[in-house]
Amino acid sequence: MSGYTFYRRAYRAFNDYPSLTKLALVFTVSGGGLVAYSDARPFGGAYADAIQADHKKKKVVVLGTGWAGTSFLKNLKDPSYEVQVVSPRNYFAFTPLLPSVTVGTVEARSVVEPVRNIVKKKGLDVKFREAECLNIDAVNKKTMGARANTFNTPGVVENAHFLKEVEDAQRIRRTVIDCFERATLPTISEEEKKRILHFVVVGGGPTGVEFAAELHDFVTEDLAKLYPSVKDHVKITLLEAADHILNIHYLCTASGSRVNSHQRSRTTRFWFDKRITAFAEEKFQRDGIDLKTGSMVVKVTDKEISTKERATGENRSIPYGMVVWSTGIGTRPVVMDFMKQIGQGNRRVLATDEWLRVEGCDSIYALGDCATINQRKVMEDIMAIFSKADKIQSGTLTVADFKDVINDICERYPQVEIYLKEKQLKNFVELLKNYQGNAQKEIIDIELFKAALSEVDTQMKNLPATAQLLAAQQGAYLANCFNRMEACEKNPEGPLRFRGSGRHRFRPFRYKHFGQFAPLGGEQTAAQLPGDWVSIGHSTQWLWYSVYASKLVSWRTRVLVISDWGRRFIFGRDSSRI
Amino acid sequence: MSGYTFYRRAYRAFNDYPSLTKLALVFTVSGGGLVAYSDARPFGGAYADAIQADHKKKKVVVLGTGWAGTSFLKNLKDPSYEVQVVSPRNYFAFTPLLPSVTVGTVEARSVVEPVRNIVKKKGLDVKFREAECLNIDAVNKKTMGARANTFNTPGVVENAHFLKEVEDAQRIRRTVIDCFERATLPTISEEEKKRILHFVVVGGGPTGVEFAAELHDFVTEDLAKLYPSVKDHVKITLLEAADHILNIHYLCTASGSRVNSHQRSRTTRFWFDKRITAFAEEKFQRDGIDLKTGSMVVKVTDKEISTKERATGENRSIPYGMVVWSTGIGTRPVVMDFMKQIGQGNRRVLATDEWLRVEGCDSIYALGDCATINQRKVMEDIMAIFSKADKIQSGTLTVADFKDVINDICERYPQVEIYLKEKQLKNFVELLKNYQGNAQKEIIDIELFKAALSEVDTQMKNLPATAQLLAAQQGAYLANCFNRMEACEKNPEGPLRFRGSGRHRFRPFRYKHFGQFAPLGGEQTAAQLPGDWVSIGHSTQWLWYSVYASKLVSWRTRVLVISDWGRRFIFGRDSSRI
Repeated sequence: MSGYTFYRRAYRAFNDYPSLTKLALVFTVSGGGLVAYSDARPFGGAYADAIQADHKKKKVVVLGTGWAGTSFLKNLKDPSYEVQVVSPRNYFAFTPLLPSVTVGTVEARSVVEPVRNIVKKKGLDVKFREAECLNIDAVNKKTMGARANTFNTPGVVENAHFLKEVEDAQRIRRTVIDCFERATLPTISEEEKKRILHFVVVGGGPTGVEFAAELHDFVTEDLAKLYPSVKDHVKITLLEAADHILNIHYLCTASGSRVNSHQRSRTTRFWFDKRITAFAEEKFQRDGIDLKTGSMVVKVTDKEISTKERATGENRSIPYGMVVWSTGIGTRPVVMDFMKQIGQGNRRVLATDEWLRVEGCDSIYALGDCATINQRKVMEDIMAIFSKADKIQSGTLTVADFKDVINDICERYPQVEIYLKEKQLKNFVELLKNYQGNAQKEIIDIELFKAALSEVDTQMKNLPATAQLLAAQQGAYLANCFNRMEACEKNPEGPLRFRGSGRHRFRPFRYKHFGQFAPLGGEQTAAQLPGDWVSIGHSTQWLWYSVYASKLVSWRTRVLVISDWGRRFIFGRDSSRI
Repeated sequence: MSGYTFYRRAYRAFNDYPSLTKLALVFTVSGGGLVAYSDARPFGGAYADAIQADHKKKKVVVLGTGWAGTSFLKNLKDPSYEVQVVSPRNYFAFTPLLPSVTVGTVEARSVVEPVRNIVKKKGLDVKFREAECLNIDAVNKKTMGARANTFNTPGVVENAHFLKEVEDAQRIRRTVIDCFERATLPTISEEEKKRILHFVVVGGGPTGVEFAAELHDFVTEDLAKLYPSVKDHVKITLLEAADHILNIHYLCTASGSRVNSHQRSRTTRFWFDKRITAFAEEKFQRDGIDLKTGSMVVKVTDKEISTKERATGENRSIPYGMVVWSTGIGTRPVVMDFMKQIGQGNRRVLATDEWLRVEGCDSIYALGDCATINQRKVMEDIMAIFSKADKIQSGTLTVADFKDVINDICERYPQVEIYLKEKQLKNFVELLKNYQGNAQKEIIDIELFKAALSEVDTQMKNLPATAQLLAAQQGAYLANCFNRMEACEKNPEGPLRFRGSGRHRFRPFRYKHFGQFAPLGGEQTAAQLPGDWVSIGHSTQWLWYSVYASKLVSWRTRVLVISDWGRRFIFGRDSSRI
């Protein structure tokens, strides 16, 4: 017996449905599901009537309608599934444009698409429930989604704004206008004016940088004209714990070590090219955005932020009017609870294998912000790989033996391929040759084999967790697996099972990095494109516009966003506090 | 010494400014102002620094940024005033489109314009303060604005939605989607589904009727596709206390009698042609909107509305999911207090003279929803009029004597002109002749004069109070007076002062009725146009669109509203609950 309970998000009518606060979904699992799915078994419990509809169908439950969940739903084509989508939001939000929403460059409604629109088009059996998952039964399922990460800094939740949801962006927009209206009221001292109009952004990641840039444009292009008496009091400060903004690098978190500094919190984001970092920092300087790197926020009160300088260790206290907290993602309590249940309690996010299955419960898949793929090390399986290649169990291998398994090795352990590329070796055989020295014998024993592969695992990298494109690719990958589930059961397409027999059903998930953008305001955008090509300037801004416009989920959102951009060019941004 | 106190609307930072909760503005008054204005006298008190700027200038304080206040600001051209605008909203809202905003036919942001945009263009000295008037000193000033009228019906404020502000419309929009999401949740019984999807509109005035129609379109055109499983449970009910919807007639409220029934509450709205009422009622029947006339709401709980049938006297109780209360306007507490102070406590709204000056305090003007013009009766002044005409004080008048004053009489007492039109009399002399019978003597005495005018006052009508166009005309009229204040001091352009000497400075305000629209949904609009021409149907819908588009305050709002309409035609309305 297993189930998950959820409740409606708090609103007036919530009290109408005490029953919903404990609503059990009962099913057994065989196979897989984004949350979990079951073959034709009857349902029970309160949920039964709702989704008993078709016993022939396999049940899939999707928690969350973010990038991963939406991408999964858009790509799922097999009508033999009965899908339940559960999310507190009945829409998908195009999050890369949230910073624009905070100042009205783009309207909130232009970047959202109702989930029911996304799923109703296809002939699939998809039901949506506007509800929030409270608790997951460890035997069976998983959830998705993340929330802002405060590192338990005192006062952040009470006093800071986050920038994860559409509502956050709307609140920020109202607050910015509020600050200006308050500052223009009589009996406000000059000092107080300065405090109210001091906007502080914590976190120099792409989101924080873009918000600071958008806010600067809003102030200079629109608000300065409407609030001339206070425009000189406005100040924007960006606090970054690391030494540079946009300076985000991979770091293997498979160790499961907890992260507790801004810098480490962003270990799962993309690496930006140094040129972009430098350009952004120069531009901010020109714009008068006060960039404070190496300063960590230790406390936030209703009017002041306390920071500690990493270099000097000195403590500063900064009066502010509004603070936006953008230091990467944390993990939702419901995921934390679940991780404890399955023995991953000491990790920061869920660990999955290369097929996105949560480690320890293979019927459950985790995608997007709540998970990282735990790439298997070659050295863990070195013996298994060797004996698999050594078909006749001679204890030694010939180069020919390798040729048979080399592709499977590279597919199963991508770090091997990366390593070869790093060393500029044509192929695996060359790698071995290196370790044979001059003695060009045809026979390789296990020791040589180990030696040759000993450094391969250093090339392992975790995938970024805040990347919307990663989540989208994962959703599409999983949907594609589900679409071909039965076919691949019969004819597995994956690599050899070195520790088992036969082949894996599917190829492991591989992330394709198409680069990313960092809008810096004033029609300036920096872009990092495939092949480490870096592009900065006005033209890039238009590239950014077009890429985003093309990525938007529906034609409706595309038209709306583009018309919003046009409207802003003509009329500027609206400053009504609604 | 006099002043008014105001406070910032409640928000997080409110506590930052206890000082604001008692902020005194000190000035003495001579002349007039929309609230009040003063000649060059020094300021004192906390407000001093803020608006001491220019002592040469006359001070004007405008409370509220609705139709009247905005129209006043748009039309004020004389730079010799120092204007203070005080309103809790920093924008003007184009209220006729609020019903469209409730369902997303038009976006909230498309129907608002920041006050600072409206005033910044001209070379005037206008300062805006986002604050709300709490209290008015009786010696000097007045406020504007109205709020929804609940007739103190129990439970309305707690459980019903109003439709006066942009925020109301946004809340309603979220609630409608909420109801549909709740109804589609599992474990909701059929009966409960019916209740949740029962939308009740109280009040059959233009706003209530338009909202019901917009909601019906939203459900049939958009939501039915997205929530197919519950679309048959949706029900819309319109409750009207009178016998017909849109059946609104003038009623002289000069008596000051309190209003306490839905019907009487709308005595200050427009009269709709019977044809429009009939068409609307038939269309609602075809659309399946349940129209319950003659039923008065006596109580509202969180799930039920209790009504009393006017005819039978029986009590009904109606389960509902959302109720929108649209039964005309009530008066804000601040206005009520002020009315008590100036001895108008027993009235429903403020009484002003024909120059929009609040009766009893001539330096204060009241416009828009909070006031009605108290047209002076001819019979009150009959002796004064007679003796004014009787220049030589002979006790009798010749027809020639009249000719001199007739225009002044008609201008000062518009009911005379209306009366003549009613009786199809060419002019005032003819009216007198009627009462002379055959004896065509040239001499008229006071008795004959009285007899001739005895019925004139029956033609007196109060002006509608919820009419945005009336408020706009009043604002423009007053601004025009202010622009020509000095000129008219020297050369008065108004009618004779019958009870005093000389002439009135300005012509009295006259309202020009350009007809009005009643959008009925499904591209059907009924319009009542000048000359009592009634137009109904699709073409009228487009007339309505174009008239509204042309009326919108700025080019920005025009473009946005039109593009919203276009967007709706192409993509339908958005159902994301944000």
